Amino acid sequence: MNYQKVLEKIQAEVEPFRREGRQADYIPALARVNPDQFGICLRTLDGNTFTVGDADVAFSIQSISKVFSLAIAMHFEGEELWRRMGREPSGTAFNSLVQLEYEHGIPRNPLINAGALVTADILLEKMADPDDFYIRFLRTLSGNPSLNYNDEVAASEQSCGYMNAAIANLLKHYGNIRGDIDRVLSLYFRMCAVEMSCRDLAEAFVPFANHRAPFAYEGITLTTSQIKRMNAIMQTCGFYDEAGEFSYLVGLPGKSGVGGGIAAICPQRYAIAVWSPRLNAKGNSIMGMKALELFTTLTAESIF
Amino acid sequence: MNYQKVLEKIQAEVEPFRREGRQADYIPALARVNPDQFGICLRTLDGNTFTVGDADVAFSIQSISKVFSLAIAMHFEGEELWRRMGREPSGTAFNSLVQLEYEHGIPRNPLINAGALVTADILLEKMADPDDFYIRFLRTLSGNPSLNYNDEVAASEQSCGYMNAAIANLLKHYGNIRGDIDRVLSLYFRMCAVEMSCRDLAEAFVPFANHRAPFAYEGITLTTSQIKRMNAIMQTCGFYDEAGEFSYLVGLPGKSGVGGGIAAICPQRYAIAVWSPRLNAKGNSIMGMKALELFTTLTAESIF
Amino acid sequence: MNYQKVLEKIQAEVEPFRREGRQADYIPALARVNPDQFGICLRTLDGNTFTVGDADVAFSIQSISKVFSLAIAMHFEGEELWRRMGREPSGTAFNSLVQLEYEHGIPRNPLINAGALVTADILLEKMADPDDFYIRFLRTLSGNPSLNYNDEVAASEQSCGYMNAAIANLLKHYGNIRGDIDRVLSLYFRMCAVEMSCRDLAEAFVPFANHRAPFAYEGITLTTSQIKRMNAIMQTCGFYDEAGEFSYLVGLPGKSGVGGGIAAICPQRYAIAVWSPRLNAKGNSIMGMKALELFTTLTAESIF
Amino acid sequence: MNYQKVLEKIQAEVEPFRREGRQADYIPALARVNPDQFGICLRTLDGNTFTVGDADVAFSIQSISKVFSLAIAMHFEGEELWRRMGREPSGTAFNSLVQLEYEHGIPRNPLINAGALVTADILLEKMADPDDFYIRFLRTLSGNPSLNYNDEVAASEQSCGYMNAAIANLLKHYGNIRGDIDRVLSLYFRMCAVEMSCRDLAEAFVPFANHRAPFAYEGITLTTSQIKRMNAIMQTCGFYDEAGEFSYLVGLPGKSGVGGGIAAICPQRYAIAVWSPRLNAKGNSIMGMKALELFTTLTAESIF
Repeated sequence: MNYQKVLEKIQAEVEPFRREGRQADYIPALARVNPDQFGICLRTLDGNTFTVGDADVAFSIQSISKVFSLAIAMHFEGEELWRRMGREPSGTAFNSLVQLEYEHGIPRNPLINAGALVTADILLEKMADPDDFYIRFLRTLSGNPSLNYNDEVAASEQSCGYMNAAIANLLKHYGNIRGDIDRVLSLYFRMCAVEMSCRDLAEAFVPFANHRAPFAYEGITLTTSQIKRMNAIMQTCGFYDEAGEFSYLVGLPGKSGVGGGIAAICPQRYAIAVWSPRLNAKGNSIMGMKALELFTTLTAESIF
Repeated sequence: MNYQKVLEKIQAEVEPFRREGRQADYIPALARVNPDQFGICLRTLDGNTFTVGDADVAFSIQSISKVFSLAIAMHFEGEELWRRMGREPSGTAFNSLVQLEYEHGIPRNPLINAGALVTADILLEKMADPDDFYIRFLRTLSGNPSLNYNDEVAASEQSCGYMNAAIANLLKHYGNIRGDIDRVLSLYFRMCAVEMSCRDLAEAFVPFANHRAPFAYEGITLTTSQIKRMNAIMQTCGFYDEAGEFSYLVGLPGKSGVGGGIAAICPQRYAIAVWSPRLNAKGNSIMGMKALELFTTLTAESIF
Repeated sequence: MNYQKVLEKIQAEVEPFRREGRQADYIPALARVNPDQFGICLRTLDGNTFTVGDADVAFSIQSISKVFSLAIAMHFEGEELWRRMGREPSGTAFNSLVQLEYEHGIPRNPLINAGALVTADILLEKMADPDDFYIRFLRTLSGNPSLNYNDEVAASEQSCGYMNAAIANLLKHYGNIRGDIDRVLSLYFRMCAVEMSCRDLAEAFVPFANHRAPFAYEGITLTTSQIKRMNAIMQTCGFYDEAGEFSYLVGLPGKSGVGGGIAAICPQRYAIAVWSPRLNAKGNSIMGMKALELFTTLTAESIF
Repeated sequence: MNYQKVLEKIQAEVEPFRREGRQADYIPALARVNPDQFGICLRTLDGNTFTVGDADVAFSIQSISKVFSLAIAMHFEGEELWRRMGREPSGTAFNSLVQLEYEHGIPRNPLINAGALVTADILLEKMADPDDFYIRFLRTLSGNPSLNYNDEVAASEQSCGYMNAAIANLLKHYGNIRGDIDRVLSLYFRMCAVEMSCRDLAEAFVPFANHRAPFAYEGITLTTSQIKRMNAIMQTCGFYDEAGEFSYLVGLPGKSGVGGGIAAICPQRYAIAVWSPRLNAKGNSIMGMKALELFTTLTAESIF
């Protein structure tokens, strides 16, 4: 298949959506981003890379970070991880605190904020310097040694992150955060504040697509079964209350972030990252969702 | 791969679970079933069939019926269907009425009871005699002309089905059932009360696995894209509040029923049906779940 | 105090609100009522009666009926009643089915629909002909032998009462309705469909204000303590999710109905009934609420 | 009536309940209290005081403080207060965060923790030194110049008060806390940590019973109508999800605290305070509830 042509066709077809939606603007650093950018990077497992648009512009990965921290936590905890969180879809938007309170501090899954805060707590338990480790892990995964935290973003998020602080306090109330709340929040916000391009993300997601190869990066190892299970979690939980929608329209495991990025994989075939800052009402990139829907339609290469 | 050996290995490995859990016993006809039965039938897309155990014993398909009625409704309604229901996972067990009330009578997805009641209402709108049509559709899909409704089961279910009657009345309150409530309930309970064996179900699910072939049975036609989308819905919504669990452990689109059956598919590869009446706390067959988990582990053939 | 002057002053002061809000119109018989009516009747325990406006026009008492059926149920069940329902305020409007499902079929209190449906079920258990008894009980309480059911209203309500049917089915599912659902609904809707004037209601509420006198009507007897406790329930639960508001602004135990009536009492002092069909968003009479607020402000005679 | 005899009779009758329930022990200072204490103080509006048991032992007033801070906030805000909180009962225990999230940061009423945190924020807005003012206000109300904060208790509460911190962060997220979260929490916990005896509390509640007299203490003034309305709020919201129960069994406006105290009033008649540390499952003093139920039964002096 001529993937380059496919990407170019997609780029043309999503053009009419370029002005729809609004970018996240709850912190200055996100509000400053030019919203009219759009890029795709596709990495096939046979080693080819295809890009269109702003595929090399770095942006805030935000919740896509939850996939990377989950990989680290699975390495350390294995199936024990599920004593502290579930692996079921969260169902509805209004569930952030509601569900957590009903379910006594056990987050529904690791890809919602509550779950990622518990994951951050695990990293703090298991590592002397998780901040340092995490960025090294991402550099190795992506093959880009210049990746870094944007500490302006992290500080801004933390200064206005009252909802996440509420969640962290509730988790602590139920004993599901063991470390210091501020330390957990600080690590969480920093992990969200890494900046990566579509190219970086596609490269970093290749190991999750290539589950027959050994996963071993910076000492983090995952089995084939564990990688498949991470894919299953991305499939059912990766898009908040649009998980069903993404599964229906796109049909790939993936994870979106409020910075406008989406990374997805097709097992044994490819990893793909798209980016465009303008979001729909559910917080997912409008052009990104559209681009991925077109990609699996045009290539007929989804998991279904 | 020697699938027969795989099935036999599974049969041996699930044996220790034979006495775990309890069968559904809320109506006499289900309570009378010998709970210590277990069967598997695998149909590959190249036309081979493999079975072990009680693969030819017919049982009540119950909620697996929701897949068949959804196929009919998608044919008639296309994307209009989503005006009357969602396609997001329902999240939690306690949500049956709760969620429906919060969301003003729009069921979360077609594979929960509320969604299937709306689907039944659609069938009643579109067809002169949906009871007659539905069983003909299943006979053709399964290639078994002797399939039939068990009207003792249907009548028993309806006589004690107060929760479903509550849901139907709530849907009517919100205008999302247009026909007569009793008629909708009657069709719904009859569709659940069809009896099929693992062999029948595996055969009937082959068209959902074989999405490149035209789907055309008794005048019901679906496009490749529609079949893929049905798979996506089964993947995210097919197991009530164990959808994430099934995706994590098994990694196949599928649908379970309270009669102890589970039907699942691997796109372009196979359809598989398992059956054992004893259920876990979430209402899914214990040996059935275990068998499918082993199957995708041993064959390494899941969607992930 | 010159109560007649007080009522006339109130009548003048509420005049500007005469066109605010809309009457209930979900059934033809309620929609046909001239909405621009307003009446008050005050009965003091020393036997005087004061009226203004349309105090002798009969209207549909609707939920005010729940007080009368509760009195009958308390007579028969005593404290056993609380095994089948609670006596806590229901909190929020959206709780009708939600709360009932969370709390496994135990209605929050007897003055919400779910509670009154259980009360109707109790009447059916305890009496050979509760329909006949109930109207006799109201005739005796009000001293008006011509009171009757409006069966057009009852039939209309039942024909569109899907939400109440949903609640009744859910109660049956949890085993908290023992009789036939349709029979329970029929009695419930008939009890709501009695027509009474403000004068009838004020008279019928006098025994609930006069708790030192023996309560004995048509064989229904209540102790002083039971009457006080009924007042407590009216105080905390009589106005759905405006119970706090009514307590704050008016400060009397009472019960409202969607027909626009409100009956309230001041223990050892008086019973008062107001009526005006136009309702606020919570389903309570706008002029009625305003009139009662003025009454307790002008007389300084509330329970606080 | 011989109130002293009534109190002595109550003391005898509640004796069998002395060992039921457990005191609050989530912080050391509360866990250290001898749980087998019990006291009552009654203050009639004609100026007489009656006591039995440990009526002069000071204890942690905890949530009873919410009444005092509400009085201050009503003085400053008047009816504007209700832009930032409701005055409806909260319904259920599990609603703390759930309800707040559904209702977008508007606490259901001022007597639950969320409401009292907003009240604390108001005090911080309106006063230069609310910590100093609040204790002076209580000293004047109670006539006891030696009242003080127990800062060990306040510090302990704050160090483990993750649920309250979660609530405060959620309120801040919705913009309903304007000041610094830590400052709000600190004031809130200090106000809860004042120590008063039954005698102090009964005296301090007399002005809320005596609504015909001008309320003017340390510059805080309330009108007759405002005092009555505070009583209405105590009546419907003073006992969390036992408000209906307390209204049903006791029939007085009041407020309980987790330290085992309950203060209540009968308008124009008396204020009464009871204390015993052992709590029921809802967090209210077992002997205290029982004693007040007996008091209104024996004296027949409730609001109903």
